[in-house]
Amino acid sequence: MKPIGTQLVLDQQTAAKLIRVALGEKKADLVIRNANILNVYTGEILENESVAVMGKWIAYVGDDPEHTIGSKTTVIDATGKVLIPGFIDGHTHMAWLFRIDEFLKIAMKGGTTTIITETMELAMIMGYDGVSALLSSFSDQPVKILSTAGAMASISSEARKMPKETLQKLLKRNDIIGLGESFWQAVLQDPALFLPRFEETLRSHKILEGHSAGASGKKLNAYIATGISSCHEPINAKEVLERVRLGLYVMIREGSIRRDLEVISEIKDFGIDSRRLILATDGIEPRDLLEKGYMEYIVQKAIDCGFDPIVAIQMATLNVAEHFSLDNVIGGIAPGRFADMLVIPDVKTIDAECVVSNGRIIAKSHQLVMEPRQHNFPDNFRQTVLFSKKLDLSDFAIPAESKSSQVEVRIIDMITDLVTKEKKIKLPVINGEVLPDLGQDIIKVAAIDRTHFPGKTFIGLVKGFCMKNGAIASSAAWDTTDIIVVGANDVDMALAVNRIYALQGGMVVCADNEITAELPMPLFGLISDLPVQDLAKRQKNLDAEASKLGIPFPNPFLSLVALTGSAIPFLRICEEGLVHFKDGITRNLII
Amino acid sequence: MKPIGTQLVLDQQTAAKLIRVALGEKKADLVIRNANILNVYTGEILENESVAVMGKWIAYVGDDPEHTIGSKTTVIDATGKVLIPGFIDGHTHMAWLFRIDEFLKIAMKGGTTTIITETMELAMIMGYDGVSALLSSFSDQPVKILSTAGAMASISSEARKMPKETLQKLLKRNDIIGLGESFWQAVLQDPALFLPRFEETLRSHKILEGHSAGASGKKLNAYIATGISSCHEPINAKEVLERVRLGLYVMIREGSIRRDLEVISEIKDFGIDSRRLILATDGIEPRDLLEKGYMEYIVQKAIDCGFDPIVAIQMATLNVAEHFSLDNVIGGIAPGRFADMLVIPDVKTIDAECVVSNGRIIAKSHQLVMEPRQHNFPDNFRQTVLFSKKLDLSDFAIPAESKSSQVEVRIIDMITDLVTKEKKIKLPVINGEVLPDLGQDIIKVAAIDRTHFPGKTFIGLVKGFCMKNGAIASSAAWDTTDIIVVGANDVDMALAVNRIYALQGGMVVCADNEITAELPMPLFGLISDLPVQDLAKRQKNLDAEASKLGIPFPNPFLSLVALTGSAIPFLRICEEGLVHFKDGITRNLII
Repeated sequence: MKPIGTQLVLDQQTAAKLIRVALGEKKADLVIRNANILNVYTGEILENESVAVMGKWIAYVGDDPEHTIGSKTTVIDATGKVLIPGFIDGHTHMAWLFRIDEFLKIAMKGGTTTIITETMELAMIMGYDGVSALLSSFSDQPVKILSTAGAMASISSEARKMPKETLQKLLKRNDIIGLGESFWQAVLQDPALFLPRFEETLRSHKILEGHSAGASGKKLNAYIATGISSCHEPINAKEVLERVRLGLYVMIREGSIRRDLEVISEIKDFGIDSRRLILATDGIEPRDLLEKGYMEYIVQKAIDCGFDPIVAIQMATLNVAEHFSLDNVIGGIAPGRFADMLVIPDVKTIDAECVVSNGRIIAKSHQLVMEPRQHNFPDNFRQTVLFSKKLDLSDFAIPAESKSSQVEVRIIDMITDLVTKEKKIKLPVINGEVLPDLGQDIIKVAAIDRTHFPGKTFIGLVKGFCMKNGAIASSAAWDTTDIIVVGANDVDMALAVNRIYALQGGMVVCADNEITAELPMPLFGLISDLPVQDLAKRQKNLDAEASKLGIPFPNPFLSLVALTGSAIPFLRICEEGLVHFKDGITRNLII
Repeated sequence: MKPIGTQLVLDQQTAAKLIRVALGEKKADLVIRNANILNVYTGEILENESVAVMGKWIAYVGDDPEHTIGSKTTVIDATGKVLIPGFIDGHTHMAWLFRIDEFLKIAMKGGTTTIITETMELAMIMGYDGVSALLSSFSDQPVKILSTAGAMASISSEARKMPKETLQKLLKRNDIIGLGESFWQAVLQDPALFLPRFEETLRSHKILEGHSAGASGKKLNAYIATGISSCHEPINAKEVLERVRLGLYVMIREGSIRRDLEVISEIKDFGIDSRRLILATDGIEPRDLLEKGYMEYIVQKAIDCGFDPIVAIQMATLNVAEHFSLDNVIGGIAPGRFADMLVIPDVKTIDAECVVSNGRIIAKSHQLVMEPRQHNFPDNFRQTVLFSKKLDLSDFAIPAESKSSQVEVRIIDMITDLVTKEKKIKLPVINGEVLPDLGQDIIKVAAIDRTHFPGKTFIGLVKGFCMKNGAIASSAAWDTTDIIVVGANDVDMALAVNRIYALQGGMVVCADNEITAELPMPLFGLISDLPVQDLAKRQKNLDAEASKLGIPFPNPFLSLVALTGSAIPFLRICEEGLVHFKDGITRNLII
């Protein structure tokens, strides 16, 4: 069976040609001549070396490339410059917001040549077909985009389902290189759900990505004992060290969700073996991408934080490749590897003067010279908010069956912009409904399934958003198939959700029964067609309008979509009800 | 399809139990308490740590194991001792001489818990069934024995054949973890034969072992460009460095074929990243095994040569595991790994006081406490010298078709005990035969196929054995299905070969028409049933009797069996004829 997806295996025809180029019997397509090459395998910088490339691959690395140069060979003179391997982002979430071609227009310039992304979001929305469609958009791009199959951890019992056959199909693909992050407490709470998926993945010679935030000692051991081989959650050097000691590859996050590199950087003085340290984003937002850049920014920052430049570069190249057992094809400059490299002025200055990916020059002097491929998605992938009708105000009512004048409810209490706890309070029942109490900063939050049981709604209450007016809503709620909305009144909540329905996905701010900001995400209800610059503007606008409503959080929409997430303590919401981190049991609002 | 062979994958049932043990819900089978653990992932020694084991696997590593200890838990107090991971021999040849249970009785004592062996010898003799039988003897042993599928490089066109289906079957097995060494010049001479095998292996997510002795620059690049990921041939630090720079894992050999560790050890001062350096034997003979030991000897020697002890231990544990992408299950002490460990007095003293393998104590105080399993081989595997009749003197004649009184022949000229070159000389033709010339030290060498075309014989001439009398013969001729014999006269040659026929395999010395020494190898014609001590005695005897014949080489039988090998320059012999290293073309004796 011909493998599906991005070719990662060196096939015999290519290998035969590489032999001929290395021996001088066939000329190279491209030669980078006379560079100071950073050799990630030994940790040396080897002066005056050259690389000969045929097709997508490296045929020869050495001090004498003349035999590979013919009349049609493109020669790049890298005298006095340093050549390093292309960067690999080992963990990100490309099934959200960015259309890949728009993302790459910005992200490819700085030297990132491989991206490894989660796909769980799409698997929940559209199963294998959805993931397959996304991966089709990833193939035949100037850089490599590889993926993990979703572990499908969710607080929703429906969303966490995945037929065994779906996972098997995904694991057979070339471009699926592991099982994505599974939250530790979900695994320990429901091993019968996850361990079969783990075994299936391990039997496919693929790895298990991990998420162990908050675990230590026995629980961390228990989680890693299931075969988990990485974690991207540590936020300080001590947590990093604890995990590497237990055999994990640790991804140090410097992205839009977390910026922990500086704090973690003290680990550089611990004298430990650095082979299992990796730099990754765990996701990057448009403004950060535009203002800072992609992996080049992170590697530069690592150097500026005091990491040895060679170690910093290994952390974004060889170490990542080794973690995924892909070091035979990426992560270093050597024969038989993909020709993924960048020319920089010196080893401390991560400023790509020229970027080569899959053997082609894709960027020069900070300009893209190769366009990403715009993928045509079939129309059905733009119809994933499957309501049969618009919502009306009655859909947001909280009926109280009790005859008494008040009820005790469990509300979501925002302790930080992300962490929540369960709080039990008594609220009055008026006309058979439990009402929010804006004076106590208690407002409604609703999770509405848009795919499995479209329209299935659960209404909860949340404290901490400080809203006196309006509503904010998103169709990209974490780890579920829900639209998530919080609002000070039912009118704005219904308006926001119905707007998302009309757009077939997006982020919306409403106030006074008007849409004040929006960002359409019609592709899968997760991804926008807009260029990155427009995304940045729209997000700035969304944030501004959300702040006007009184929301105190630095990233209001992040706080919103995290409400359905399964990995952050303690009380979360989905279309089935409220779920507590500690026991995974689904409960009602009214106690 | 249930995978065949040694289970390397952490299955869901086991993972579920490991969770429970780590959490203290189920008690461990074994706890090693209060050791100073060498953590190969960070390169630290962590004091007062404990390891809890369930079944074959590690469930917990940390400073507080009490929750894992129950009334039935075996507790080893390792206070003041150092605990290190079990050693892995990354490259050896177990399809020769030793029956695995006899080998393990000696080899297991010192802390080697995983052996990775070539199987090519057996594939040539008996195809898939032979390899499968050998691997069956390897399963359910106290230590793990894993294998590579033979690349089948041979100077014989018949011996190098391997049906695609055979390789596919082998690659599907759990206990086949890569394609074995392919000699670089064979690959570059005949890419059409090898590159399909390489692609098949890479598509199975398995690796390509390499053999690049004598290659450098363009040729080395060409070879590595085919996807090769290791080499065990470098004999000095410069060669090691050259290969690591090109992306290879390099195995530093300290075994019976080569002892290069001391010379190579200067690399420890080069300041290079050591993650791709590996210690291996490439085969060990009985006397060395008895007098020195197995991997423990090599690691101790590395430390004595000045390597940092932690680096030396990584070179025999984690680095090997990472090379084979098996570091998720072996090569370190962490949850979710096999419980393969040894207790040593201190990190510089590789003296196993206690060895744990697959979670069981297999050795204590230098004594085995667990017996290897003696495997019952079906009888047909003891019938692999398939002659239909004994050889007679006429089988050793060299007819000269020419009418002239002399012919020009190409002889094998031994430059060293292993390296040969082609030498063209004129010899007289007497009674229609070309005769050897003992005065010039030119004697006969014969390669006789014992399996594919049993009895097919090619007679050549060799200079350098200095024999005036007798013959020596072996059925374990390298890289072929031949019996190889050299002798000063046809009578002793016939006697030696016929004795091997009667024994159904072995090594024999003859003189004056009598057998003066022999070592039967009836299993596949490659392996003896004798205990290691008896093997050592018999080999000593073989060497002594061979030396009496005048053979000047330090290891006469090594020089003998290398005559058919495809990897050492320059002129070699097989049942089809003489083959020159430089072009791979088969030629006759008479020019």
